[in-house]
Amino acid sequence: MSKQDNLVTAAVIMIGDEMLSGRTQDKNLCFIAGFLGEIDIQVEEARIVPDNQSRIIEAVNALRPQYDYIFTTGGIGPTHDDITADAIAAAFNVGIDFNDEAVAILRQRYDEKDLNAARMRMARIPHGASLIENPVSKAPGFQIENVFVLAGVPKIMQAMMGCLAPRLKGGAKMLSRSIRCNIGEGLVAASLKTLQSRFPTVALASYPFFEKDGMGTNLVARSTDEAALNQAEAALIELVASTKSQ
Amino acid sequence: MSKQDNLVTAAVIMIGDEMLSGRTQDKNLCFIAGFLGEIDIQVEEARIVPDNQSRIIEAVNALRPQYDYIFTTGGIGPTHDDITADAIAAAFNVGIDFNDEAVAILRQRYDEKDLNAARMRMARIPHGASLIENPVSKAPGFQIENVFVLAGVPKIMQAMMGCLAPRLKGGAKMLSRSIRCNIGEGLVAASLKTLQSRFPTVALASYPFFEKDGMGTNLVARSTDEAALNQAEAALIELVASTKSQ
Repeated sequence: MSKQDNLVTAAVIMIGDEMLSGRTQDKNLCFIAGFLGEIDIQVEEARIVPDNQSRIIEAVNALRPQYDYIFTTGGIGPTHDDITADAIAAAFNVGIDFNDEAVAILRQRYDEKDLNAARMRMARIPHGASLIENPVSKAPGFQIENVFVLAGVPKIMQAMMGCLAPRLKGGAKMLSRSIRCNIGEGLVAASLKTLQSRFPTVALASYPFFEKDGMGTNLVARSTDEAALNQAEAALIELVASTKSQ
Repeated sequence: MSKQDNLVTAAVIMIGDEMLSGRTQDKNLCFIAGFLGEIDIQVEEARIVPDNQSRIIEAVNALRPQYDYIFTTGGIGPTHDDITADAIAAAFNVGIDFNDEAVAILRQRYDEKDLNAARMRMARIPHGASLIENPVSKAPGFQIENVFVLAGVPKIMQAMMGCLAPRLKGGAKMLSRSIRCNIGEGLVAASLKTLQSRFPTVALASYPFFEKDGMGTNLVARSTDEAALNQAEAALIELVASTKSQ
């Protein structure tokens, strides 16, 4: 499908050595992609980078001119390996300091004796950024221009997404239809290719599955054009029926 | 931890719209990172890109000079949206055609009547590439220079990794130790930072957890230097004990 002008796009940058060592299975991309899809924003790229300042800067600066929104996850906690806020400040070439609003949030969350220097680091926010509420553990995320900086812990990240959603403006609604069949991908490929040229505004894709009870293919159609999508869906159903009957 | 000369590094490029729409939860990165870690190769970056030729080319050509090995997953099936082989050929600026060895594999797998044009596409391999065996569904992956092109279906990708492993040369062994404690991340952060400066060849990281039965922190130390790692581990255990007794 050709890129449509009214699509609103996003990229996700997941920050953390733990996903690159195989220690942690990422669960954030799938959530963010689904969440944004619901409000008509399409994730078009994702990167996973280590806790390394220059790698974070490189990814943020490569992606922020290319997409409407950038979301980062991870690296905003209290420990020495939490370097995302500093990296984002450096990427935007702005200063970073204790943010009054963030300090007030932490003072409300922690007793004075527990609000040590490490926890206070979580109130260091790049100049010009606005905070993103964290209803779970309070230490806020932040937004600077089109970049939204979120926690890496899924529960916290998800709550932050809910809080920042009103700031996002979706585009054309991406609709999708999915048909599961017991036919091998190779047997529907030629007809699918023909259908794809018949429906240039619909993205047709196929995903083979191999399961205990057999193998087959999920056929998926996605488009912002509902009328074309309905026609493509009907054609897919016909394709499956006629392939089965061969 | 500073980059060590004897580390062997890798990047993973996962190709497929389905991971960016939230439809599919990626499971390949975690497996690849763990598999490579076992043979002393460190994944340092991952990207997820859509089924779009220019995006695939851009990612492959950005990453292949930076890392020892590149692994791609997805987009090598029989359908029109399987464009990885063509994109890789374009990235390397080489031709692509039916590969005799790959054709022979498919002829063995499929009866002549089932070996249609779509399935034959899976035998199109960039010039100069060597095949990677696929013990599950036969259609091979391939290697060109330092880029290994694998299937996206986890079961097939995993089998391919097993087959290609003898071609990979690991570097220094990355060892890791992990300590779980019921202490909030913010309470160990300062001591952890001090420890990090004491052990410059060990990467210390902390990962907070929030579970039904309470919250706490996983402290992780990683290094290729076993003696330093043992010392760092002992220091971490002491850190946890002394923080608890406060």
